[in-house]
Amino acid sequence: MSILITGVAGFVGVNLAQRLVGQGLRVCGVDNLSRGTIENMRDLLGHPNFEFKQLDMTEPQALLKACEAFSSRSSLTECWHLAANSDIPAGVSNAAVDLKDTFMTTYYTLEVMKELGIQKLAFASSSAIYGDHGSTTLVEDLGPLLPISNYGAMKLASEAAISAAAESFLSQAWIFRFPNVIGVPATHGVMLDFVRKLKQTPDTLQVLGDGTQQKGYLHVEELVDAMLWIRDHATDIRSVYNIGADDNGVTVKFIAEETVRATQPFATIEYGQGNRGWVGDVPRFVYSIDKLKKLGWTPTLSSAQAVQKAVLQIVQQEQN
Amino acid sequence: MSILITGVAGFVGVNLAQRLVGQGLRVCGVDNLSRGTIENMRDLLGHPNFEFKQLDMTEPQALLKACEAFSSRSSLTECWHLAANSDIPAGVSNAAVDLKDTFMTTYYTLEVMKELGIQKLAFASSSAIYGDHGSTTLVEDLGPLLPISNYGAMKLASEAAISAAAESFLSQAWIFRFPNVIGVPATHGVMLDFVRKLKQTPDTLQVLGDGTQQKGYLHVEELVDAMLWIRDHATDIRSVYNIGADDNGVTVKFIAEETVRATQPFATIEYGQGNRGWVGDVPRFVYSIDKLKKLGWTPTLSSAQAVQKAVLQIVQQEQN
Repeated sequence: MSILITGVAGFVGVNLAQRLVGQGLRVCGVDNLSRGTIENMRDLLGHPNFEFKQLDMTEPQALLKACEAFSSRSSLTECWHLAANSDIPAGVSNAAVDLKDTFMTTYYTLEVMKELGIQKLAFASSSAIYGDHGSTTLVEDLGPLLPISNYGAMKLASEAAISAAAESFLSQAWIFRFPNVIGVPATHGVMLDFVRKLKQTPDTLQVLGDGTQQKGYLHVEELVDAMLWIRDHATDIRSVYNIGADDNGVTVKFIAEETVRATQPFATIEYGQGNRGWVGDVPRFVYSIDKLKKLGWTPTLSSAQAVQKAVLQIVQQEQN
Repeated sequence: MSILITGVAGFVGVNLAQRLVGQGLRVCGVDNLSRGTIENMRDLLGHPNFEFKQLDMTEPQALLKACEAFSSRSSLTECWHLAANSDIPAGVSNAAVDLKDTFMTTYYTLEVMKELGIQKLAFASSSAIYGDHGSTTLVEDLGPLLPISNYGAMKLASEAAISAAAESFLSQAWIFRFPNVIGVPATHGVMLDFVRKLKQTPDTLQVLGDGTQQKGYLHVEELVDAMLWIRDHATDIRSVYNIGADDNGVTVKFIAEETVRATQPFATIEYGQGNRGWVGDVPRFVYSIDKLKKLGWTPTLSSAQAVQKAVLQIVQQEQN
């Protein structure tokens, strides 16, 4: 059994690939290396069960050719589609970014899967598909889905295209909706931002917003656990699951304090105004993982513990 | 005040344009005439308040140029985006059809609106965005949204893109989700199909499926009423409304019998097997318009009455 991972050189991609390769499975990965890096894959490249091809997925002929080559050695039976724009603000200022990198990558993944008869698809969707529902708890059967960023919109568009494909040629589709995932290799996000800021100005940490923005955080190692759990236990043709922390999350203030504590204990933290970081960022939400818990999986780390673990890992990453 | 209508030469487009022109408003319409026709617009063309430009909306420069020309005479302040693929089976066999005609038309509409500062958008979405929820009543806050056709998927993708745009440059977005709309000028659908079949073989009407498929039907004149009502009364930045009949609908058998009665009273009706017409067609659903009724609008015709009225209109259309 060979597994295709798109966006394999990204944050979630390398964590997933390492886990699958570790289980003795053959992993074939593609990435355009626009945000993912060769450095991220240093533990994978050269492994006998790992193959990598650099290509841009919005050139479907290149993707098809690569997948045919992968399949010629051992049939691809399952695809994990993770490739997407991960820079939400970039997509807010220019809708073309998420159209191309978040949606069209999905469209072409489906086209190639149809062509090659790959019938199982796992998809990394996002809590951003829900939009801003105020204090309403985000459960999988909530509607209407009114994303406030182009990133969220094109993730929802991807879910929709996958759902339609499950009516014609897919035998199974797993859709994972997750909010903030943290850990290493960190490529973006508030923690990396704070660690780097404190390296430049060790005395002061400038925080965008007033620090009250609160979110649940899941560690990437637990995200991989949860996704594999869903793949192995959910039986519907289309399975949609929220994955996240099992609590109401922590504030930006908590993250700032933890980062300061781990790096520059005597630094002062200075806050800005407002509780929204940028256009398209939902300020605060409560995320339900009851459906996932019912399926038998619960995270072992709280949001606070996940943040503490990730901060230490990111500090170490940035020292190298 | 000038209003832009995309897909103006289609079934809903001409009905809407006639209403708005009749209210003394200036209407600027575009259509690629791939499914819409000049014939459909015969009562509109030549009217001093109506301007038409044939173009393909997936050529955004042509769309922008046309809208700039429209606006040079009187500013476009509102857009009704109706352009879409209306042939669901065509989109099921080839995903590229709905990608281009149902989704990319929306994407480019938004780009041009952003460029020209048009801040109000009314969008013709569809009950197809819900997917197959069995006997669960389809209400606007239902999820997850798992369309089973590429048409439904690309309508949902369009909703998502519009929702994101409402966070940045749109001041108001009205999203109308409607199921089967009937009336004239009929360009496709089960009634036109039956009328034409009976013209060819007056003795027998062959029905695809067993005739038990049941749906609510709304007459296009009432659809226009409802959409304008929502535009005039809904105040949210993003308003999502189901529009439909206020009953559980009628069966294909009823439509077959009404068509036979109106055209060839002695014809025999022969049914096929199964209750699903084609891949991507949801067999039976209950559609809630409670939210719309709460806003103050209720259809005056039942599904049965709408069918009876439309059958007579289509018979007349086909005689010309």
